[in-house]
Amino acid sequence: MKKSLLAVALLGAFAGAAHAQSSVQIYGNLDLGLVKRTDQSLNIGKRANNTLGFKGVEDLGNGLKAIFQLEMRYEPDTGANETGSNGYQRPLFQGQSRVGLSGDFGTVRVGRGLTAFQESSIAFEPWHGIPSPQGFQADLAVAGYTSDPLSPTGNSANRFSNAVFYNSPEWMGLQLNTTIATKEANGNAAFIGRGTAAAPQYPANTTSQTNPYSISVTYRNGPGALMLAAERNAVESKVASFAGSVYVMPETKLMFSITRQDQEHTRPFNYDTKAWVIGANHQIGNGKILAGVGMKHVDGMEKVKQFSLGYEYALSKRTYLYADFSNKKGAPAIAPSTQTSINHYALGVFHSF
Amino acid sequence: MKKSLLAVALLGAFAGAAHAQSSVQIYGNLDLGLVKRTDQSLNIGKRANNTLGFKGVEDLGNGLKAIFQLEMRYEPDTGANETGSNGYQRPLFQGQSRVGLSGDFGTVRVGRGLTAFQESSIAFEPWHGIPSPQGFQADLAVAGYTSDPLSPTGNSANRFSNAVFYNSPEWMGLQLNTTIATKEANGNAAFIGRGTAAAPQYPANTTSQTNPYSISVTYRNGPGALMLAAERNAVESKVASFAGSVYVMPETKLMFSITRQDQEHTRPFNYDTKAWVIGANHQIGNGKILAGVGMKHVDGMEKVKQFSLGYEYALSKRTYLYADFSNKKGAPAIAPSTQTSINHYALGVFHSF
Amino acid sequence: MKKSLLAVALLGAFAGAAHAQSSVQIYGNLDLGLVKRTDQSLNIGKRANNTLGFKGVEDLGNGLKAIFQLEMRYEPDTGANETGSNGYQRPLFQGQSRVGLSGDFGTVRVGRGLTAFQESSIAFEPWHGIPSPQGFQADLAVAGYTSDPLSPTGNSANRFSNAVFYNSPEWMGLQLNTTIATKEANGNAAFIGRGTAAAPQYPANTTSQTNPYSISVTYRNGPGALMLAAERNAVESKVASFAGSVYVMPETKLMFSITRQDQEHTRPFNYDTKAWVIGANHQIGNGKILAGVGMKHVDGMEKVKQFSLGYEYALSKRTYLYADFSNKKGAPAIAPSTQTSINHYALGVFHSF
Repeated sequence: MKKSLLAVALLGAFAGAAHAQSSVQIYGNLDLGLVKRTDQSLNIGKRANNTLGFKGVEDLGNGLKAIFQLEMRYEPDTGANETGSNGYQRPLFQGQSRVGLSGDFGTVRVGRGLTAFQESSIAFEPWHGIPSPQGFQADLAVAGYTSDPLSPTGNSANRFSNAVFYNSPEWMGLQLNTTIATKEANGNAAFIGRGTAAAPQYPANTTSQTNPYSISVTYRNGPGALMLAAERNAVESKVASFAGSVYVMPETKLMFSITRQDQEHTRPFNYDTKAWVIGANHQIGNGKILAGVGMKHVDGMEKVKQFSLGYEYALSKRTYLYADFSNKKGAPAIAPSTQTSINHYALGVFHSF
Repeated sequence: MKKSLLAVALLGAFAGAAHAQSSVQIYGNLDLGLVKRTDQSLNIGKRANNTLGFKGVEDLGNGLKAIFQLEMRYEPDTGANETGSNGYQRPLFQGQSRVGLSGDFGTVRVGRGLTAFQESSIAFEPWHGIPSPQGFQADLAVAGYTSDPLSPTGNSANRFSNAVFYNSPEWMGLQLNTTIATKEANGNAAFIGRGTAAAPQYPANTTSQTNPYSISVTYRNGPGALMLAAERNAVESKVASFAGSVYVMPETKLMFSITRQDQEHTRPFNYDTKAWVIGANHQIGNGKILAGVGMKHVDGMEKVKQFSLGYEYALSKRTYLYADFSNKKGAPAIAPSTQTSINHYALGVFHSF
Repeated sequence: MKKSLLAVALLGAFAGAAHAQSSVQIYGNLDLGLVKRTDQSLNIGKRANNTLGFKGVEDLGNGLKAIFQLEMRYEPDTGANETGSNGYQRPLFQGQSRVGLSGDFGTVRVGRGLTAFQESSIAFEPWHGIPSPQGFQADLAVAGYTSDPLSPTGNSANRFSNAVFYNSPEWMGLQLNTTIATKEANGNAAFIGRGTAAAPQYPANTTSQTNPYSISVTYRNGPGALMLAAERNAVESKVASFAGSVYVMPETKLMFSITRQDQEHTRPFNYDTKAWVIGANHQIGNGKILAGVGMKHVDGMEKVKQFSLGYEYALSKRTYLYADFSNKKGAPAIAPSTQTSINHYALGVFHSF
């Protein structure tokens, strides 16, 4: 009762330092380098996503923890907030914005983040899940699937907004991960699908007719791991994936994934897509070799094939240099290009903090 | 003289670590849960505002302190920067951006933040001032008043930009708080008012004809507190409010507010609005019951009535679960809905850091 | 092998606290005050840029360091992300976004930031390089030159995006600083230049025909310093500058710069601009007097002349109060004003953290 009424507001402003210092962790990374694509000039660009995040854990006692995470994404070559296709700005916390509780029952979070399938699949992709054209995560590892087709233009292709995320504890090597989203509208542009421009199958800013969901089950046994996953998005495209990895030596990991997408709900034809990826990571001292080959086949269309080879040299646990080469063939290999064989080269530095 | 000229810039970049570590505090909160409105599907949304802030205090000696605060606001269900009406993006530091000095004379700050009236009124509102539809702060507690009608579309309704904020020290239980803004233009859309679409009373990006101001006087005596406040915005709407609270028991706080808005300067009719709110907070162990009832009456229009009941269960000082119910009646109860009786349900988690 | 597969993701989320705490430094400043311009009402605005930044240094051993810096910029009077001309939003990390390595060879960084010329010239400008109308940095010190004409509208005038930055070590008082940008397109609006509205010299979102570059050489000897710099931007405007400074007493610094811009590549006439600035800083106790006079002359146009006088009073190493006066003459002195003599007054507080 010694404090003035407005001290409540000022306290909100200036007190609370003690716990703030200990509860928020800042983290992130910068990845920049020279990138060259067959049909483009030499550019400066990224290989991995660039993040600046804030996260924390609060111990609530009895093994219960409150957790939160907010993750910005940006383009360090221009200083801009991350942009998606056609330069559309993505949300400020594109990486994720989630809060939840963790305990013996597992982890429950609410908000926006990678779906269970997209998050689990990273462990089976040879470029550790980064969405660069040298890697396979953004296209072949998911058979061209998009998790969030009814978000604003340019938005993420592998996240759910307005979702509940559950990760079970591991039991006998098994873990269950699920994500369920609400049907609520989120500012999408019209999605024509099986409709017409005048009467699109999903009008602008529409609600979904069913709840998008994502499920993955992972199994671990010694050096081996398996994943079985399925997901359905807001326009009822379905994806299913089976993946595995094994450390044949402590320094050598082999991995594969087989994925199938069904877009029959929104396409009269070309709706069945199959894809596979085989990859390897091999550690030599501070260096790491990445290799992968994969194929994507939309029924009735030409097959898309990709081969990638990369090298990472660690200057420390937080900083490495990298050099990548990849070739992608198909028609067109990478939209909006019309070329059917595209090479990518990248040479840069990755620094995490 | 041992440093190169560019070291000035690099120093700007990499030195200064020592004081930076001690002078900036990161704080904020996430609030997410399931929300259901009579006329909408089950959504994931917020109850309180979501913040990520940076603040600090520098001791200048002789009781003088320099203070600053920067507060982002965001939508954790989509990861986006906070959006206002119709999805318009709000400023990056929507919460506040202020710098100032604090000492024996009180606190003077410059920048953008809650007005004296809006900030003081929080202590007399049973949902601790959060702008959710379960609470009363955004509508009934202020008689539908908007502090900042000449800011960009979607902007805050209870802040002044381009303002000087003064909070006096407390004297015999009395405290004076004032906010005065400049007349400068800030990118508003045209405001028709008593004009026409062709000749709006306030054209786009216009200056105010008078300085917006806000004053509150608060008085505290033992378990009781009172507030008297008045404000005038950039389109010369006026609001006046009288509020009080009393702890009838240490765990039970009762509160009320009476507020009147006069919009005669911009409306030919329906310009007189009266409103009142009565509320209670009652603590039971880790639980807290919130209850409130209120009414808003625009002259010549149907009365709007609201009843709300809530429960917060603290898992810790920083984290609580909540469940809310509210009903709002009137015509229309909540624009753009056309229904005259709307129920709100909310169930979620609040975590501060 | 005790961790579940998803623990990888959760680890990414919640581990790494130890190094995060020690590796990221938050820094920034707020600058706000009352500003008055001859032809405008009294406003609240800034004198210096306002920043909120994140930076870090990682020791890689053998004198090698990994460095990064991310710097937001904002308008504290409205809470908005920094806006450029006509209210266009600038990138989130307008200040800079760079990552690199530092060692015996100097410092190499990649990303976006001030060019070598713009960064070096700050040391020779009497308002320490702040872009306020009281200072000379934004106009006279660079002869009206713009480093980045092919970035999105409203973007920075003194940065390169998509660039490599190199700063040499100092050798016998000499230091070399260079910046080279790629030719890649970055979302510019059409730039008419010597073309027409129908066929602009540089169409929208175009690549540059040559690589923009910037070079500065600085020399230091006791109390004196010199700079020789040259730069060419993406539309092949060229700028060259010679500058010097000397501490005639420990508390008195005198400085000058002579700069010439050649815009012949994009202008049929008025393409040769010459400018000079003379300035002084004088310390008296906690106070500092700033003074400067300068002239800019575009061939065939009226000369622009500026005189400025300022005073800064330090409350601490991190906080000072300031008062500025300046007069600028010419036709028009400051677009879009049509007046040929404009006075600026500023009175405010600067706080760094």
